[in-house]
Amino acid sequence: MKYELANNLFRRKHANRNRFFVSKKKTHQFLQDILEILYPHFNQNFIQSEDDLYIYLNKTELLLIQILHDFMPHEEAKQIAVTFFSNLEFVRDQLDLDAEAIFVGDPAATSIDEVILCYPGFFAMCIYRIANIFYKAQVKTLPRIFSEYAHEVTGIDIHPGAQIGERICIDHGTGIVIGETSIIGKNVKIYQGVTLGALSLDKCDQNTKRHPTIEDNCVIYSNATILGGKTIIGENSIVGGNVWLTKSIPKNSIVYHKSDIKMDIIKPDSEPEELFYEI
Amino acid sequence: MKYELANNLFRRKHANRNRFFVSKKKTHQFLQDILEILYPHFNQNFIQSEDDLYIYLNKTELLLIQILHDFMPHEEAKQIAVTFFSNLEFVRDQLDLDAEAIFVGDPAATSIDEVILCYPGFFAMCIYRIANIFYKAQVKTLPRIFSEYAHEVTGIDIHPGAQIGERICIDHGTGIVIGETSIIGKNVKIYQGVTLGALSLDKCDQNTKRHPTIEDNCVIYSNATILGGKTIIGENSIVGGNVWLTKSIPKNSIVYHKSDIKMDIIKPDSEPEELFYEI
Amino acid sequence: MKYELANNLFRRKHANRNRFFVSKKKTHQFLQDILEILYPHFNQNFIQSEDDLYIYLNKTELLLIQILHDFMPHEEAKQIAVTFFSNLEFVRDQLDLDAEAIFVGDPAATSIDEVILCYPGFFAMCIYRIANIFYKAQVKTLPRIFSEYAHEVTGIDIHPGAQIGERICIDHGTGIVIGETSIIGKNVKIYQGVTLGALSLDKCDQNTKRHPTIEDNCVIYSNATILGGKTIIGENSIVGGNVWLTKSIPKNSIVYHKSDIKMDIIKPDSEPEELFYEI
Amino acid sequence: MKYELANNLFRRKHANRNRFFVSKKKTHQFLQDILEILYPHFNQNFIQSEDDLYIYLNKTELLLIQILHDFMPHEEAKQIAVTFFSNLEFVRDQLDLDAEAIFVGDPAATSIDEVILCYPGFFAMCIYRIANIFYKAQVKTLPRIFSEYAHEVTGIDIHPGAQIGERICIDHGTGIVIGETSIIGKNVKIYQGVTLGALSLDKCDQNTKRHPTIEDNCVIYSNATILGGKTIIGENSIVGGNVWLTKSIPKNSIVYHKSDIKMDIIKPDSEPEELFYEI
Amino acid sequence: MKYELANNLFRRKHANRNRFFVSKKKTHQFLQDILEILYPHFNQNFIQSEDDLYIYLNKTELLLIQILHDFMPHEEAKQIAVTFFSNLEFVRDQLDLDAEAIFVGDPAATSIDEVILCYPGFFAMCIYRIANIFYKAQVKTLPRIFSEYAHEVTGIDIHPGAQIGERICIDHGTGIVIGETSIIGKNVKIYQGVTLGALSLDKCDQNTKRHPTIEDNCVIYSNATILGGKTIIGENSIVGGNVWLTKSIPKNSIVYHKSDIKMDIIKPDSEPEELFYEI
Amino acid sequence: MKYELANNLFRRKHANRNRFFVSKKKTHQFLQDILEILYPHFNQNFIQSEDDLYIYLNKTELLLIQILHDFMPHEEAKQIAVTFFSNLEFVRDQLDLDAEAIFVGDPAATSIDEVILCYPGFFAMCIYRIANIFYKAQVKTLPRIFSEYAHEVTGIDIHPGAQIGERICIDHGTGIVIGETSIIGKNVKIYQGVTLGALSLDKCDQNTKRHPTIEDNCVIYSNATILGGKTIIGENSIVGGNVWLTKSIPKNSIVYHKSDIKMDIIKPDSEPEELFYEI
Repeated sequence: MKYELANNLFRRKHANRNRFFVSKKKTHQFLQDILEILYPHFNQNFIQSEDDLYIYLNKTELLLIQILHDFMPHEEAKQIAVTFFSNLEFVRDQLDLDAEAIFVGDPAATSIDEVILCYPGFFAMCIYRIANIFYKAQVKTLPRIFSEYAHEVTGIDIHPGAQIGERICIDHGTGIVIGETSIIGKNVKIYQGVTLGALSLDKCDQNTKRHPTIEDNCVIYSNATILGGKTIIGENSIVGGNVWLTKSIPKNSIVYHKSDIKMDIIKPDSEPEELFYEI
Repeated sequence: MKYELANNLFRRKHANRNRFFVSKKKTHQFLQDILEILYPHFNQNFIQSEDDLYIYLNKTELLLIQILHDFMPHEEAKQIAVTFFSNLEFVRDQLDLDAEAIFVGDPAATSIDEVILCYPGFFAMCIYRIANIFYKAQVKTLPRIFSEYAHEVTGIDIHPGAQIGERICIDHGTGIVIGETSIIGKNVKIYQGVTLGALSLDKCDQNTKRHPTIEDNCVIYSNATILGGKTIIGENSIVGGNVWLTKSIPKNSIVYHKSDIKMDIIKPDSEPEELFYEI
Repeated sequence: MKYELANNLFRRKHANRNRFFVSKKKTHQFLQDILEILYPHFNQNFIQSEDDLYIYLNKTELLLIQILHDFMPHEEAKQIAVTFFSNLEFVRDQLDLDAEAIFVGDPAATSIDEVILCYPGFFAMCIYRIANIFYKAQVKTLPRIFSEYAHEVTGIDIHPGAQIGERICIDHGTGIVIGETSIIGKNVKIYQGVTLGALSLDKCDQNTKRHPTIEDNCVIYSNATILGGKTIIGENSIVGGNVWLTKSIPKNSIVYHKSDIKMDIIKPDSEPEELFYEI
Repeated sequence: MKYELANNLFRRKHANRNRFFVSKKKTHQFLQDILEILYPHFNQNFIQSEDDLYIYLNKTELLLIQILHDFMPHEEAKQIAVTFFSNLEFVRDQLDLDAEAIFVGDPAATSIDEVILCYPGFFAMCIYRIANIFYKAQVKTLPRIFSEYAHEVTGIDIHPGAQIGERICIDHGTGIVIGETSIIGKNVKIYQGVTLGALSLDKCDQNTKRHPTIEDNCVIYSNATILGGKTIIGENSIVGGNVWLTKSIPKNSIVYHKSDIKMDIIKPDSEPEELFYEI
Repeated sequence: MKYELANNLFRRKHANRNRFFVSKKKTHQFLQDILEILYPHFNQNFIQSEDDLYIYLNKTELLLIQILHDFMPHEEAKQIAVTFFSNLEFVRDQLDLDAEAIFVGDPAATSIDEVILCYPGFFAMCIYRIANIFYKAQVKTLPRIFSEYAHEVTGIDIHPGAQIGERICIDHGTGIVIGETSIIGKNVKIYQGVTLGALSLDKCDQNTKRHPTIEDNCVIYSNATILGGKTIIGENSIVGGNVWLTKSIPKNSIVYHKSDIKMDIIKPDSEPEELFYEI
Repeated sequence: MKYELANNLFRRKHANRNRFFVSKKKTHQFLQDILEILYPHFNQNFIQSEDDLYIYLNKTELLLIQILHDFMPHEEAKQIAVTFFSNLEFVRDQLDLDAEAIFVGDPAATSIDEVILCYPGFFAMCIYRIANIFYKAQVKTLPRIFSEYAHEVTGIDIHPGAQIGERICIDHGTGIVIGETSIIGKNVKIYQGVTLGALSLDKCDQNTKRHPTIEDNCVIYSNATILGGKTIIGENSIVGGNVWLTKSIPKNSIVYHKSDIKMDIIKPDSEPEELFYEI
């Protein structure tokens, strides 16, 4: 190993930075701590009493300040931490409603405990509701580290800037993408693979609303793609699987896509070339 | 930090629960232990002899009893553990066949070792076959924690209640969802993004068969969606990519979906508004 | 627990192997070490000076030799390690360009730091560019363990054998599959769910080019499927979402798929049976 | 680093041994586990109920079998483990009496809790009473690893073969050495630096009694040295500090050593050469 | 393993206690944290700036509160913690003087850094000066856990209640015992094995001064024993090795003990029986 | 917690130092690594072959360079590391002889394995022989950190500068102190509490020989104190327990100290005031 390599890599590594980044592990630790504070299902340490929890809360606040300090001066970090913890009971309120919505919405769920323990949709909502508080407090980058953590664990990618109402039901959720300026009402159910995206036309201005609005009580089936900041899915509507929508639909609508399917009996030596593939 | 916050959160956290949940880490540890017991590729400790393995098996049994004890009385937990370990050789038999099926089914695979080490499909089948034993023993919630672990790691979501035959070939698998009452025969190959789901009509009764049946030797290409408890894909059939199926098809069928695609040459200032988007 | 079980499992576990496999944890550790060596954003240890980095590089080289030694004799492992580290600055060059491409390509990105910290697409490219060096050095299996690690974390599956040019922009990326013999030019943008696969016809010969070629400056929208070793997407082309392509298209083309969508107003008792489902 | 060095060292390292030794850490872990099982003061894990303790006992038994297996066949190890655990309540009985004796014997002790938490003498008795069971079961070497652990932590070296009665009071204890064939009655108090050793004359036969006997209710003050297998300190006797004894003394004796001390007033330039030193 | 054993042990273990004790590991962690806060030589984490140290101080304060909470109500614990930290700069002042005294007092010491890094006497003084603050704040048991930690590491046993002046020089120190009501002046040097103890006569009343007073500028050579609450070693005095003192001596005294030694030439078959021994 | 405290402590902490010290844990790790490299009894990792050991040696060399780098420039550190490892086989030779000497010298030892696993004297010799190489290479401070580690674990304090011959037998060893310029021949046996120190007269010049010389085949019984750089214990001599020697003795001498002991029968109300004490 030539010493020169270390020299070059070190120079480049620290070209634009004097400080070290907080390790990602610490940000993940923070999220796990908050979950443990909120629900006994995420138990890792042993919090036996109000006093224990009080000390644990203080510890977690210190960890948060340490993390935030990477992105802002110390005093500001303390202020943000205070804001966050003053919102924590509200987060718990919201998450209780989400858990209930998932439990009601999925016939396979056998208990609220199962929802909290096993549902990636619930986990993703936990992280989203935490990240959203930091987004609203105008913290840069950190809420995105949080949402990317949820993405890693669940395959669900909810931008912390999205505005999402109460009682959201996401079940498997793999592949869901919800963009930064999306607005989602109450009682909405979203299946896996759904994209709420921006049309390229909108992209010139980062500050306009670029992603769609989903009003109350809608259901969006799997792999539906809904695009555009002016696109509004009216309340009580249903969007079918694989639908591609770039226009608004009125309330109480149902939109679906009936695909054209052909069926043959397999004969030797007759495989249609373009259908069968390997990866 | 106000003490009142700790007080409120503690009260709510333990509102419905006197006990602590076993940490998820322990359930994941159990799965990793079983994999290490089965294959040298999941080596984490150093098991050098039959005696070492015997002790390691006993340790893992204790861990399992500890985990199960969260959900049932101690004696029952011990009984379930005995049942599980008496099935462990059978699990190994099944997984050997799955590994072979993947190796044969994927031209890119260079050895069985590579399949065991690198294929998410194999990992998902490992966890499914373990979880399924607990499901059949009527353990609640835990098998779902197991299947959700596989989902996290691989993006493949196989409900532990599904009945799946021998020699299943899943390769990349991201986005696969296989519902609780699905029945899958032998020698079936399933590509990424495939959903075996329930029609809403079926949902009234949680105990009926709500998910489809795939008979022996079928191939289901990527992103195909097959729905309904009465839907049967007859043996030796092929379901093409993106196909949406809610009816049975006879054996030896081939079903596909030829999409209607348009092509233009790009001209300045002519981008079709609804096609291009950002997220 | 019967001793006989340990005996049987041990015998089967080591039936074909005398040695132990390097634990996956070590291979993941190696990847994390390399990332920490390259960018301060992946900070886990405390590397304060060129000297620290030099020692850290040497440690990482030893870890690599230990890992490689599972697959080849010791001397050969040392040679491969030398090759790898001599390519490390080149990897850093390439990744800087990728980060820049993502930053430019995504209006939501607020800084290069955010891209490096949060974008799964960037992470997947890091692992791909590392794995590709080992693939080119004809190391078996290991590059696949690496790519599977990226798959686990990001849901993006890039085969280490793919040939990928500079300035690749992948953002969310969940579900992307890029096959072994794919060739991708410069400045290409790929959305989530895209598959670059092989037609079954090609599979007879593992050594032929089985996956498509994407030329410079193309954009491939989400869930597009492009198949076949002879399929070439000409430069500057755009492939729309959900498009299924098995033929080449000339440069400057735009291909899209306008789906046929129906809309109704929801009426009581009128749900179309095949549209709504549960999983 | 020359490869030859590794070669030579490896060859020598394993010249006489095919197997690996159990790590000392495991033997220390076992001792800590037993202490945690016996007293809540050694709390490291969280044992919340009889069920938890039952599982923890089983785990500790497995660890013990694994450790013993280094020194004997598997079946024998299991038998010894059964013996040990059947003696565990007796050990607790004995230790309760020891703690009480220390509490009564030291005016500075404020509670039994303080004795258990802070007194090296109590810790040394814990390890001795555990090690003694294995010694009596004729396990080789392991009891000595245990006693050496106590020696490391406390500076007190009690050979596991010593026969020691109830209610032993050892306080600071640094430097105490109690030989293999020592016999100590009940209610004995031993200060720091005391040696119960063997005369060289006795050493020819390893199986004879080589170390002294201390009868009930004796007090041995600091740095006293008592030697010889036939030396008996009669009951209720007191041995003063720094006394060197190689003969028996009758019961109710008091033996002391009044040293000859000189005192001067320091004058300039008059330091007695042999008195003052540095190390 | 019989379940009954777990039952009995659990019942006895928790007979007198409802709560769990804080683990000793946490108390040791606290001491290590304080040392790291005071001197860079005890570096374990990476404290890079005043801000980092501020957060680290807060963390350590929380740990302290958690530990104290085992022994007192929460509010009181917080108050003690405030007191402790307000004394921390004073502790640093004192320790700087101790380090200097050791450096000056030991010709073998090559730098203050070496003293801080390697001298058990310095380590023991660190822990004593920390423990003494808690003793003065009337915390029970905890200061003794602290002093016992120093005893474990160094073999030096200084009761937290002793009153010890500035610039104390302890070097090797193994076996030193300094009792609870000892008073030691400034500039005192104490060699290994020295005991400052209580005469049995004094023990009736735990609250009287039972241990000796050592005035300024004294030197106490190794294994000297000084006993009694009324015993005063006048300033500038020297106490020789192995001296046993139970009376006061005036200032500027020198006390020593010239032992009576015999020398022979070894002849075959003539070993004096009582001299040679084995342990 | 006032921020000012952090500020003051940080300023003082780093007043004289720009860099961080290597953590003591790393130096202890290095010693444990070397012991594991030398003997299978110190097994912590799993070194299965010459290749494994080769990699492990390289890792340990890197750790050593990292540690040394705290005290010297990088190039010099590398040079010292090379020197150390070229002496490693010699260290093993020496330690084998020491183990044998202890085995032969202690009738209680049942095997060489027991000596290596359990004897503090052997452990102390291991660390001394390692530290001595660094001392001879003129490394400052580090060898003293090493010897202090042995002191912590065993209570035996051998200065790394001492010159010690082959086949040294130390058994319990608690309290042994061997000064920097001591010279010890071959086949010497040293009991616990022995001091080889310097007379104060010698201290003016740090570079003169200040500590005694013990020639071949001597035995030094417990708590003997031998002082002075010109003091020579001639070969084959025996120094009895508690002897205080500041003059040379010829070869084949035997020196002992017969203490004057008084014995009474205990009578009520007659305790001699100065004899009985508490601590």
